[in-house]
Amino acid sequence: MSFLREISPLVKNMFLSERDVLSIRAAQIAAEIQQGERKNYNEVLDLSSGDLHRGGIKPITFVRQVLAACFYPALLEDDSLPFDVKQRANGLLRQCDGGSVGSYTDSCGIGKIKQCVSQFITRRDGGVPSSPDNIFLTSGSQMALMFMVKLLVQSEGSCRTGVLIPVPTYATFTEALEDQRAAIIPYQLCEEQGWTLQMEELRRALHAGRRTCNPVALYICNPGNPTGHIQSRKSIEEVIRFAAEERLFLLADEVYQSCVYREDTKFESYKKVLSEMGSTISSTVELASFNSASKGFMGECGLRGGYMELVNLDPAVKEYTRKLFSTRSSPPVGGQIALDLMTDPPKPGDPSFPTFSEEVQSIKNMISKNACRIQEVFCEIPGISCQPLKAGFFVFPCLHLPPRAIKWAKKKQMEPDMLYCLHLLEETGLHVRPGGEFGQRKDSYHFRLFVATHEDTMEDVLQRLKTFHKRFMKEFS
Amino acid sequence: MSFLREISPLVKNMFLSERDVLSIRAAQIAAEIQQGERKNYNEVLDLSSGDLHRGGIKPITFVRQVLAACFYPALLEDDSLPFDVKQRANGLLRQCDGGSVGSYTDSCGIGKIKQCVSQFITRRDGGVPSSPDNIFLTSGSQMALMFMVKLLVQSEGSCRTGVLIPVPTYATFTEALEDQRAAIIPYQLCEEQGWTLQMEELRRALHAGRRTCNPVALYICNPGNPTGHIQSRKSIEEVIRFAAEERLFLLADEVYQSCVYREDTKFESYKKVLSEMGSTISSTVELASFNSASKGFMGECGLRGGYMELVNLDPAVKEYTRKLFSTRSSPPVGGQIALDLMTDPPKPGDPSFPTFSEEVQSIKNMISKNACRIQEVFCEIPGISCQPLKAGFFVFPCLHLPPRAIKWAKKKQMEPDMLYCLHLLEETGLHVRPGGEFGQRKDSYHFRLFVATHEDTMEDVLQRLKTFHKRFMKEFS
Ligand SMILES: Cc1ncc(COP(=O)(O)O)c(C=O)c1O
Ligand SMILES: Cc1ncc(COP(=O)(O)O)c(C=O)c1O
Repeated sequence: MSFLREISPLVKNMFLSERDVLSIRAAQIAAEIQQGERKNYNEVLDLSSGDLHRGGIKPITFVRQVLAACFYPALLEDDSLPFDVKQRANGLLRQCDGGSVGSYTDSCGIGKIKQCVSQFITRRDGGVPSSPDNIFLTSGSQMALMFMVKLLVQSEGSCRTGVLIPVPTYATFTEALEDQRAAIIPYQLCEEQGWTLQMEELRRALHAGRRTCNPVALYICNPGNPTGHIQSRKSIEEVIRFAAEERLFLLADEVYQSCVYREDTKFESYKKVLSEMGSTISSTVELASFNSASKGFMGECGLRGGYMELVNLDPAVKEYTRKLFSTRSSPPVGGQIALDLMTDPPKPGDPSFPTFSEEVQSIKNMISKNACRIQEVFCEIPGISCQPLKAGFFVFPCLHLPPRAIKWAKKKQMEPDMLYCLHLLEETGLHVRPGGEFGQRKDSYHFRLFVATHEDTMEDVLQRLKTFHKRFMKEFS
Repeated sequence: MSFLREISPLVKNMFLSERDVLSIRAAQIAAEIQQGERKNYNEVLDLSSGDLHRGGIKPITFVRQVLAACFYPALLEDDSLPFDVKQRANGLLRQCDGGSVGSYTDSCGIGKIKQCVSQFITRRDGGVPSSPDNIFLTSGSQMALMFMVKLLVQSEGSCRTGVLIPVPTYATFTEALEDQRAAIIPYQLCEEQGWTLQMEELRRALHAGRRTCNPVALYICNPGNPTGHIQSRKSIEEVIRFAAEERLFLLADEVYQSCVYREDTKFESYKKVLSEMGSTISSTVELASFNSASKGFMGECGLRGGYMELVNLDPAVKEYTRKLFSTRSSPPVGGQIALDLMTDPPKPGDPSFPTFSEEVQSIKNMISKNACRIQEVFCEIPGISCQPLKAGFFVFPCLHLPPRAIKWAKKKQMEPDMLYCLHLLEETGLHVRPGGEFGQRKDSYHFRLFVATHEDTMEDVLQRLKTFHKRFMKEFS
């Protein structure tokens, strides 16, 4: 009796098609090194995911102290913890049933923390009101995105629900769409102009999509993963106007909103821009915006804390959303606490403020410096071009591969960027992801590089990359 | 532009139909008391959910100490924490990328913790082998259940996927089925015989189901929520044989496996019994078994730690399951740690052992005592009958309501058990859930009572209930 027969072949193919050979090989190499095998390098450097702590960045002390005191309240008697840490932990415990982080919470999250999040949003957006009622806390923002996709594909209609997504894009969102059998409508970002979003392209994609499905939503990732770009206000306005005209639901993935590295760049939320576009638009365009404790300078991916804010949703739909949430049980309390601390960090004058701001600033400085060095080094390497890193945790350099390398890859039944990444891993121990995972224009090749790691590590990475790349290009020229 | 139009009316009705008036009223009353309003009671006693800490039970010290040290490793230098706590925390941190619980983990969970879980299962089942490869850690067992439902409804076929579920049952699972548009095939547990599962009834239900859908799975909750029963070995064998004959996938919800209160009762897992039924059956019947850190004596609901073990799944399906998991990102690390501690608790000789075992034993004793008192008191109350509590966190007493009460409820367009619970809440401050939420035989009425609370509280609850019930019966007789 096998259950496999029962599973739709469609879905089966989607997922079974490609094993993650790169990660498997990375793990093997790490094991080989541990068993004493000699390589040109001492360890595998994992630059494959957007994970600060994995990359060696230390957690923020304030965050961990509050968490420790919440989990083990005996620490509230401990003299070694700062006063504001204890005060915060005490306040949070009062919000938990039975005074314990071990109790279930409301499935949309603890009320007081939702309030904290909405106050943060109001401050961030220069006063645009936000209500806790529109905030939904989740076990990471990925869960919130999956939830919205599920909601969207339930819409009626004779044909499949379609969602517009950028190319390249955050791959796990694409998987969530596939998982829900939504139709994917790709729109191409313009690499040459710094991965900007072009309105003609968006229009083309929508009209193409309408021929095969029922497009209901537009997903934007701003700041961008894997592109490292950030949208201008003008571009956001254009997108909103487009959504209004075409009656599209906006999914604004803004998890990298606090990771902006240049003096001349500023993050503006979709919600803020929307609120300033005149009432016909500002009161009608439906928007879900996402943020996460995994990103920013806290980088608490393992706690699983994310939230979404819903804007302009019909009250009945909001009620329905709440009901649907209630079938999912609480988001993890640790993640909820992380969101509280992220959206209401220590203030000047608080005992924890000096250490806190020093720690945050040093991470910011580190990434800014890395951004410059990446730019410098990539400029020197023939056959790589890279749009400037303005925000987020990644760059997405373009590989101008010699035709022989491409031919050889095809012969090996492999994508050329995958081949490049596999060789890079094998020869230098660097684990980066091939562009194909995120989508890329046909016959263009990229890789995604995580940039939020120590300056020394980054320097090492860049030198290994440079040496490897030259050798690779020479071999195939 | 409203998105509501777009949502399938089917799903809309399912969820919008009933607001949770009972919880809303409970919150209102709590607020009224806080504002100084006088009532016959000083506080609302929440016996509505299966949440130890909410009910006032203290967390297990060892668990919280290890968690605190993992979140804030500076505590590893602290002399106040026992040696085995530090050792465990250190070991767990070594399993986290970058040595931080803030890193993403494998989406099926940390390998070492899966190993710990599988060793626990092997010990529990007297040596039946278990492989970490078949263990999937999740953000609570509810998530694992939802995941399996999703997997099951993807099966092909001209008609809807059906799942057999007991009546009464754990309501959130039913919601997960509705959420995935699975067809629900109810089978009635036999209240008069202690909520046992009757094979004729199961057969009847399956054949009835086959007329309208494609039944592929059978869900069992053992020990039972809300019934407090536990299945005999013979009954488990019958169910397994039935599953083999009818080619049904078994979903064994065993989250209350460690909550057994009588000397003469013992929990035996479906996996263990299956393994002892001869190779034609033991190597073919497909089984998913669920467990959780929320239940047992740890009661860490807020951490969100659950797992499932898959048995006899086709390797390709397992691979597919893993792929599907990978679109969901990590379960929260705090919940994973809780599972590690649950499945590998302190042993005799460990510094934490005395306190640990004392804490666990006192919770066990408390519930056992409550079970006896509940039995005694319900025997004295005319118009209530209650099957004995053998395991789990709940009893599900039957209300023999006078016809006038039923008539009056119908006139108020309310279910009689709901009316009863609302009055109980209003007059005594007790918040229990009406039987209708869990399913009950037509024209029978129940309520579900949480039993894992302090003896004094339970005594208070029983007295309030007794007084109220007598008054209620008199009023309507
Ligand atoms: C653009 C984007 N959105 C969402 C997420 C999900 O993050 P999480 O689920 O950890 O909040 C990620 C993670 O890498 C991301 O890059
Ligand atoms: C029978 C049963 N299964 C599963 C669950 C889900 O528990 P959790 O998701 O907290 O692990 C519960 C919770 O009450 C339950 O009673």
